[in-house]
Amino acid sequence: MIIVKSALIQRTLSSIKPLDQKSMEKCRLHHERLAIPLFSLGKVHEISIKLAGIQAKEKPHIKDMCIITMAGDHGVVEQGVSLFPQKVTLEMVKNFMLGGAAINVFARHVGARLTVVDMGVMGRVPKIESAPGTKFLEIKIAEGTKDISKGPAMTKEQAISAIEAGIQVILKETSEGLDAVATGDMGIGNTTPSAAIGCVVLERPPEELVNTGTGIDERALKHKREVVAKAIRLNKPDPKDPIDILSKVGGLEIAGLVGIIIGACSQRIPVVIDGFISTAATLVADLFHPHIRDYLFAGHISDVKGHLLMLSHLGLEPLLDLKMRLGEGTGAAMGLFLLKLAAKISNEMLTFEEAGVEGPKV
Amino acid sequence: MIIVKSALIQRTLSSIKPLDQKSMEKCRLHHERLAIPLFSLGKVHEISIKLAGIQAKEKPHIKDMCIITMAGDHGVVEQGVSLFPQKVTLEMVKNFMLGGAAINVFARHVGARLTVVDMGVMGRVPKIESAPGTKFLEIKIAEGTKDISKGPAMTKEQAISAIEAGIQVILKETSEGLDAVATGDMGIGNTTPSAAIGCVVLERPPEELVNTGTGIDERALKHKREVVAKAIRLNKPDPKDPIDILSKVGGLEIAGLVGIIIGACSQRIPVVIDGFISTAATLVADLFHPHIRDYLFAGHISDVKGHLLMLSHLGLEPLLDLKMRLGEGTGAAMGLFLLKLAAKISNEMLTFEEAGVEGPKV
Repeated sequence: MIIVKSALIQRTLSSIKPLDQKSMEKCRLHHERLAIPLFSLGKVHEISIKLAGIQAKEKPHIKDMCIITMAGDHGVVEQGVSLFPQKVTLEMVKNFMLGGAAINVFARHVGARLTVVDMGVMGRVPKIESAPGTKFLEIKIAEGTKDISKGPAMTKEQAISAIEAGIQVILKETSEGLDAVATGDMGIGNTTPSAAIGCVVLERPPEELVNTGTGIDERALKHKREVVAKAIRLNKPDPKDPIDILSKVGGLEIAGLVGIIIGACSQRIPVVIDGFISTAATLVADLFHPHIRDYLFAGHISDVKGHLLMLSHLGLEPLLDLKMRLGEGTGAAMGLFLLKLAAKISNEMLTFEEAGVEGPKV
Repeated sequence: MIIVKSALIQRTLSSIKPLDQKSMEKCRLHHERLAIPLFSLGKVHEISIKLAGIQAKEKPHIKDMCIITMAGDHGVVEQGVSLFPQKVTLEMVKNFMLGGAAINVFARHVGARLTVVDMGVMGRVPKIESAPGTKFLEIKIAEGTKDISKGPAMTKEQAISAIEAGIQVILKETSEGLDAVATGDMGIGNTTPSAAIGCVVLERPPEELVNTGTGIDERALKHKREVVAKAIRLNKPDPKDPIDILSKVGGLEIAGLVGIIIGACSQRIPVVIDGFISTAATLVADLFHPHIRDYLFAGHISDVKGHLLMLSHLGLEPLLDLKMRLGEGTGAAMGLFLLKLAAKISNEMLTFEEAGVEGPKV
């Protein structure tokens, strides 16, 4: 376990425990007795058993679900790494509040509430009334990060503050009722720091992790690879030190998501991670504690280069592959819905005995 | 188009039209304007555009959804092709009515109603009150099929009656409000006729399509392959004649599902097919009319040998891969939910212009 100069982070990490093996074993035995061919629901059983271990309950239960979408801006967009102008981060945050973005549709569809957090958006998000089921939190550690190709993204103090803020957000959500959480992101340019994080933690070259993001062309992609290479060469982040990585090549929304993840683990709340950016945050969170992974589900495999490499490093198999590459939490929302289904299978299905169905011939 | 001695089937087939290209094009243009990187929701856009073509609406709409699970018994179980005794078909139908089976949990979770149809179950399904959201229909063309390793499964008249019954079921469901349908099956032993259908239509050997079904061992699998080979050798079904195939190596629930599929196509209702058995029914339905495929979605890839081969023949890509191999409609239920999501994306998301978000730099 990493030592950080933050009582909150330290306390949170100390609370993270391994999965409850006894509950998992009981859950497995219960699933063996369900009136279906043995384990014929495949991953649904696996999810249910993992949830039993996370919640320390023989029959896991999921009712309240929340998608937390964190937003931040990135100084590195000055380098021309994105197809979209920086102000789109702010405009999209407004769209989330209006309820008209993809993540709003996904959240409503799967029955999850949506919490949008300004971790470091450039400019002031106007005070407008949020759409039903949507909440907005202004934390804003800074007006975006600094350009990582010229120096560190933020100070170590800012990185720590952002993680602490993430922990506070998840603790507040937990107090309002929460059985499963999904991560999401919004930040023009944020595939650049995410790729940099991937390169550092996995110790791989930019060629394997830098992708076209929102859709840049081959020439811009080449340039983006150089920007990432330069950011790493210049800042020299320590691959074993999460705060060092976040402060040098991270992002404010990414650091916030690290807080969400470790906070959720400390509360025994399952976390469904979204695509490339959320997985970069997970790579950092994973450095903090050996049991983070136990609480995670990969919502999907994103249709961008490098994501599979990150997930493999974490030992996570994606639940879905719909060739999506949007972010916002959209790749995690359906995963939440699957977790809820898996929990219901533990609670609502009859066993052979209960249903009066004869079992397999032995 | 095949000519069948049934006015209902003939009329149904005549009503099947190609996808509406104009609606698809309008839908595609609308999706291009949504406030996200171009087509970054991957398959979700593709589903929405296909739905636009099916429903002939620029913005497809899905509210009412139904899973139709057809049950039937199989004489061939006498040959020891299944791990479960024949009476489990009837017992599981009762379980569906009680609301305690996997498909009940899936149906409730995705917000679909469930219609269970006795197409040819051995023995009488008792008159018990169905669980909320579940309906039972007794059609029972026969008390199960005959052993296909000794002769035809049923008469051609029975095959036609079963298809007609399927058409009537879907027409009734349509009249009650239906925007998308999923297929499901229950029938101990039914992977055997399904594999036989696959071998006949795809003109492949049993080694490529016979699988372990509910979980038989290697020795039983070898025997099952021989049973399928014998059934085909003895009955000589014509690979181009759907009625011939169904009557010789089919099943009553499989024939019923053929009726559901062609009936749904005639009503411009999208069909999500389940796994191995439903896909065998689809192989037969596909022989009737060149535009059947246009209305289909493959809910998932089942974790059994041969399913991918069948889907590839139909040109269908599975939406999900959760290593499930249960049937009942469980592999299609989540697909219905995805269709509904895709339709909502067409209706509920704002465009760049509507949301006041700047588009990509050009």
